[in-house]
Amino acid sequence: MSKGRLEAFSDGVLAILITIMVLDMKVPQGADVRALRPLLPVVLSYVLSFVFLGIYWNNHHHLLQAVRHVNGRILWANMHLLFWLSLIPFVTGWMGANHFAAWPVALYGAILLCAGCAYFILTRILIAHHGRDSALATAVGRDVKGKISVGCYVMAIPLAFVHAWLACALYVLVAVLWLIPDRRIEQTLTQQHA
Amino acid sequence: MSKGRLEAFSDGVLAILITIMVLDMKVPQGADVRALRPLLPVVLSYVLSFVFLGIYWNNHHHLLQAVRHVNGRILWANMHLLFWLSLIPFVTGWMGANHFAAWPVALYGAILLCAGCAYFILTRILIAHHGRDSALATAVGRDVKGKISVGCYVMAIPLAFVHAWLACALYVLVAVLWLIPDRRIEQTLTQQHA
Amino acid sequence: MSKGRLEAFSDGVLAILITIMVLDMKVPQGADVRALRPLLPVVLSYVLSFVFLGIYWNNHHHLLQAVRHVNGRILWANMHLLFWLSLIPFVTGWMGANHFAAWPVALYGAILLCAGCAYFILTRILIAHHGRDSALATAVGRDVKGKISVGCYVMAIPLAFVHAWLACALYVLVAVLWLIPDRRIEQTLTQQHA
Amino acid sequence: MSKGRLEAFSDGVLAILITIMVLDMKVPQGADVRALRPLLPVVLSYVLSFVFLGIYWNNHHHLLQAVRHVNGRILWANMHLLFWLSLIPFVTGWMGANHFAAWPVALYGAILLCAGCAYFILTRILIAHHGRDSALATAVGRDVKGKISVGCYVMAIPLAFVHAWLACALYVLVAVLWLIPDRRIEQTLTQQHA
Repeated sequence: MSKGRLEAFSDGVLAILITIMVLDMKVPQGADVRALRPLLPVVLSYVLSFVFLGIYWNNHHHLLQAVRHVNGRILWANMHLLFWLSLIPFVTGWMGANHFAAWPVALYGAILLCAGCAYFILTRILIAHHGRDSALATAVGRDVKGKISVGCYVMAIPLAFVHAWLACALYVLVAVLWLIPDRRIEQTLTQQHA
Repeated sequence: MSKGRLEAFSDGVLAILITIMVLDMKVPQGADVRALRPLLPVVLSYVLSFVFLGIYWNNHHHLLQAVRHVNGRILWANMHLLFWLSLIPFVTGWMGANHFAAWPVALYGAILLCAGCAYFILTRILIAHHGRDSALATAVGRDVKGKISVGCYVMAIPLAFVHAWLACALYVLVAVLWLIPDRRIEQTLTQQHA
Repeated sequence: MSKGRLEAFSDGVLAILITIMVLDMKVPQGADVRALRPLLPVVLSYVLSFVFLGIYWNNHHHLLQAVRHVNGRILWANMHLLFWLSLIPFVTGWMGANHFAAWPVALYGAILLCAGCAYFILTRILIAHHGRDSALATAVGRDVKGKISVGCYVMAIPLAFVHAWLACALYVLVAVLWLIPDRRIEQTLTQQHA
Repeated sequence: MSKGRLEAFSDGVLAILITIMVLDMKVPQGADVRALRPLLPVVLSYVLSFVFLGIYWNNHHHLLQAVRHVNGRILWANMHLLFWLSLIPFVTGWMGANHFAAWPVALYGAILLCAGCAYFILTRILIAHHGRDSALATAVGRDVKGKISVGCYVMAIPLAFVHAWLACALYVLVAVLWLIPDRRIEQTLTQQHA
């Protein structure tokens, strides 16, 4: 079974998710620049989610490149990942509309946590299918970044009720971690762990 | 005539349908977790429809893999299937907004029934085009699952007026039937029929 | 220059147009079947536009199959066609919300007329690029159906103000004309003209 | 790393952006032609943004044709471009709803300016990756049009506060500049500069 349509479908869903979030930025009533001020938290949460979905597309792209063939279980593991990502526009909208209040920020972290776990499951199923010595298993490696991200989400959820901005800072940290060019940080982290 | 664009167009439509359903989850007014409670039926109906559209994409993917060439009739049979699937976001929204009341649940079943029939027609036209001895005809086989699904929908529609949750249980049953890895259940069912 | 991305982009735009029309079917307030009755004109206009966009996708698919290479003018002629098609969801919504009143029905015809002309321009530019003896020129032929369609739209626009249902009947006639399997009707029409 | 999915994802995002702008054209209440009059500025701003997004798709298409391989930096430079383009539906809606008032028109120019810079960055990173003597570097050339466009946006933003229509005229000028067949204008401009 070829992976072409799996990529095409995932690209379609991710492209739609990343763009329908714009629909939550309602056109403001006034023509003045002050009419934009209430939109600031909406824009900030949009930027954060845009970057997260961009990271997921990027990683998905890299992951699928090493994939040789797919089966029914892989299709469903991928669909499971897309399900959690599909909830990101909703939590982004809720977080933006409530100026980063505790519950929306915690739920945002919970959805990111579920998506992170779904991505982890997808990589395990792919490696099980391709073998532990495959190029895919080597490419995924020990997935230090993935584990740090999940750790950050787990910390951020309770922190959201102490001070929501601390949780948001953790989300930004995870995003920056993935944006920094791969090799250098991975080497650093691997050395720290060694 | 090649099947590439038929796949691309169907992937596009299915990817959009599966994601625009999220737009029905309106961002709630309050920042409290209690503000999410009225959304529970909306989320449940979203999950159900996400799984159904996922199953259709999955089956469509498998079906098209065995296809060698397409013609005008096949294009329209595919468009007919997409038409019924395109109504799923609407009935999902109606069902979720009305807490699984009788009429919305019955209409949901009716749309699933129409989509199931459209899928059956598509397979027949494809087999007629490729021949009864083609790999496609073998792959589709007796389509026991498809027939059970249609039977469940036919039962669920009147049941929705007796007790709507019975109809919903049947929909979940159909979804589970398709989610269980293919071979085992099919073998079991074939033996039962034999 | 290859035609792959032109097809992919057109597929994407057409897939989105055909599905965002569903968003105009607002979820009704009541859970009763009577709550659906006001939606009837919306559903009817949706079905009509779904078929028209399906016809355009189908024809575009056939047309592009005979294309060998594209240039900047062809990209823009295609974009011009997509522009007029992108207005179909808007006129569909206006027509459905106003129970097929005179002005919306006339505007619907005007948009179809513009899309028909844009399609005609696209075929001319493609033929000019590929040569009058190319497989493409043969495939397009005398385009009898296209000319009849444009004629019907021209008649339908003034007729909408006499009796809107006459105009709608003409739109349905055009749709049926394209849905009937190609060869038979074209042979009949060619013989009538001969 | 292949460029196929980068193209597919960009096509998806651009196709969605160009079509969701139609959702800002709310179906008017009346069935009369006068009900359409308040929509005129919305339609005008839609046409302008449709052309701009069409130009970006067109240029992106040309640019990626000369690309041989991509890396992580290129993926993110492309995502950065898509981010600014994703804000176009929002500013288009704001500009249309406020009849081309000063602030919305200035913000429209600012978003176009950011998108123009993001496109410039993308071309630089691509050229750095492919080498100064690559076919890509030759195809991009001195990018006179790109520089004139950015100059126009920089002028248009303050001009929007003097007279908004002057800024709009500059936007139209840029659009026309890109719509005119490539070679002739580029030769003229190169000679003027020489």
